[in-house]
Amino acid sequence: MGKALIIGAGAVASVVAHKCCQNPDVFEEICIASRTRSKCEALKKELDGGRTKVETARVDADKVPELVQLIREVKPDIVINVALPYQDLTIMDACLETKADYLDTANYEPPETAHFEYKWQWDYRDRFEKAGVTAVLGSGFDPGVTGVFSAYAQKHYFDEIHSIDIVDANAGDHGYKFATNFNPEINIREVSAKGSYFENGKFIETEPMEIKRVYDLPQIGPKDIYLLHHEELESLALNMKGIKRIRFWMTFSQSYLDHLRALEDVGMTSIEPIEFEGKQIVPLQFLKAVLPDPSSLGPRTKGKTNIGCIFQGVKDGKERTYYVYNICDHQECYREVGSQAVAYTAGVPAMIGAMMVLTGKWKKAGVHNVEEFDPDPFMEAMNRCGLAWHEDFAPELIG
Amino acid sequence: MGKALIIGAGAVASVVAHKCCQNPDVFEEICIASRTRSKCEALKKELDGGRTKVETARVDADKVPELVQLIREVKPDIVINVALPYQDLTIMDACLETKADYLDTANYEPPETAHFEYKWQWDYRDRFEKAGVTAVLGSGFDPGVTGVFSAYAQKHYFDEIHSIDIVDANAGDHGYKFATNFNPEINIREVSAKGSYFENGKFIETEPMEIKRVYDLPQIGPKDIYLLHHEELESLALNMKGIKRIRFWMTFSQSYLDHLRALEDVGMTSIEPIEFEGKQIVPLQFLKAVLPDPSSLGPRTKGKTNIGCIFQGVKDGKERTYYVYNICDHQECYREVGSQAVAYTAGVPAMIGAMMVLTGKWKKAGVHNVEEFDPDPFMEAMNRCGLAWHEDFAPELIG
Repeated sequence: MGKALIIGAGAVASVVAHKCCQNPDVFEEICIASRTRSKCEALKKELDGGRTKVETARVDADKVPELVQLIREVKPDIVINVALPYQDLTIMDACLETKADYLDTANYEPPETAHFEYKWQWDYRDRFEKAGVTAVLGSGFDPGVTGVFSAYAQKHYFDEIHSIDIVDANAGDHGYKFATNFNPEINIREVSAKGSYFENGKFIETEPMEIKRVYDLPQIGPKDIYLLHHEELESLALNMKGIKRIRFWMTFSQSYLDHLRALEDVGMTSIEPIEFEGKQIVPLQFLKAVLPDPSSLGPRTKGKTNIGCIFQGVKDGKERTYYVYNICDHQECYREVGSQAVAYTAGVPAMIGAMMVLTGKWKKAGVHNVEEFDPDPFMEAMNRCGLAWHEDFAPELIG
Repeated sequence: MGKALIIGAGAVASVVAHKCCQNPDVFEEICIASRTRSKCEALKKELDGGRTKVETARVDADKVPELVQLIREVKPDIVINVALPYQDLTIMDACLETKADYLDTANYEPPETAHFEYKWQWDYRDRFEKAGVTAVLGSGFDPGVTGVFSAYAQKHYFDEIHSIDIVDANAGDHGYKFATNFNPEINIREVSAKGSYFENGKFIETEPMEIKRVYDLPQIGPKDIYLLHHEELESLALNMKGIKRIRFWMTFSQSYLDHLRALEDVGMTSIEPIEFEGKQIVPLQFLKAVLPDPSSLGPRTKGKTNIGCIFQGVKDGKERTYYVYNICDHQECYREVGSQAVAYTAGVPAMIGAMMVLTGKWKKAGVHNVEEFDPDPFMEAMNRCGLAWHEDFAPELIG
């Protein structure tokens, strides 16, 4: 049916490529491109032998002309951006110039700030619409599936949704006393950033980790869960009509927080370089080198993730609650695609989003968040593609 | 009366030099020598103007010939070793060769092991005796004053001492969430080393920090206190006749331990180098560079130390308890000599021990621990020299 250019060769990109190759009727060809071609080649080796034809290329995704040239050579129907969020805009520029459809999993952040916002990418709306090019923003799990869940709840179960609680729980155990699933810089930023939630038309800021609950989640059990800011709050607040409150919750264990705080207290998470043996060294960079490589956690991680949304609102004049969630098992994910559930749950929805565009179901000129599309084919594909979902109309979660 | 050669120019050496200059009748001249002469010169500037004549010199205390040459030039009556414990033996060798009396505050440790033992220095007993040279080992506070307290208790209050509990409490607050008073390597080793205590003729090993008590100490209040191994247990077990049990206790706050453990968990206290940007870097060395410089804590540290010994035994057939202790105020120490109480309590007894040798009160050929000498003149000097002590015959300490 079509050809996808996957930009990036990290854990999420690897999942995307594996899942594309599991759907060769849709993804007849893929090209994996990143700054380090050897990574793309290693990935190609894992994938070769199936019906999907796999190519690789080298590209510096910071450079629009390089991207344009690559897209002209590869001629993809869609560009799946699973590179760094800093590179969203250069890749969007290249897609506009070459009229290739675009999809990503995380919104743009200027390298010099720590602030994720959609405004940079929403600024491209007119240009994409005029060019007749589709851009799908934030098609990972959260953001991504959480938006699809919201659209699905709205379409089938509510006249009006008043509140959404997005709950991202990871009960995985890698056996280390402390390690981070992603770049520790991002983990640390998550924990030390102010929280915020949307209520009655505006965002309310909280102190970092100020609001804590215990949720007793299916197949996960009771977990400490904290209110964080998360990027989909911004788009859902705009796209869900009549919404009164949206909150995002994520699990952190006490031990994880204690370690992170101790490291912060002593200055090991600082990004200010210090002088060490005549060299300027950033403590956080050194910490990263001391901690286990996130990519080494995959084979060791046991347990499950549970990510879902709890909706409250009205249908036919009656109040109702609806909880929809996915559970992934780290070891099953690893066996299937060589990555644990954190990368798996981000990568599969990127493939499904691309599948929606390629099959014409989500083909719509302009720049869109996932909740703006019809959720049904996406939800159906989730059940087929390893992200089966469950629903509960009377959840009892809060401990 | 005499001349002292002080080897070392760190915080303890600085206290020793200041206190020598406060006693110019005994210390007519001092020479401060270390590897970095500029440090000695800086110290000399603080001291010049008093009656004690101050010189400086450069010496590598790892090298016996350099030490011998220095001692021949300076012609000291006593060498006060407040350099590194690794250098005890080279300095003792040089003292033997030049027949200069010797005093230190911490026992020798081979650089390649983490094991403090007296055997290396006790091996010099015959040679010092034959040469007619006095060596006083461990004349800091603990070891040092704790041995003097033991000899004093034995001399005045007991026929037989059955148990000694040495209690080293530091209630100083430097205002940092985490910092170490000495080289963090030594702090970390203290906490992660197995504990041990002497009981019924042998040493009993404990897990690190296994035994914890709460002591409610005068002017300090209730503190968590942990059983550690400490070097004076070895000499006191030998020198205190009839002793049945000796234990050493030190305060550590929960927050201090939590931070240290988190750093240990993530590998930041490891002494195994890791590859970082093409360079081999020891995590602990880097941690040291990130933490506040111990020498910067002096001006910020508030609160008091309380170090003392609790003796239990019999006198005239009756059981009795005797508690003798010193309290130091960090800020008062800093005002007096520019160092807080941890360095102060280690440095003042080194000066007093040297004073005992120079005045002939502790002049005795051979290698001796402090408890082998008459404690009375030392105890009397403590009251005059900033380490006033207090006694209690019915202490109620254990919470």
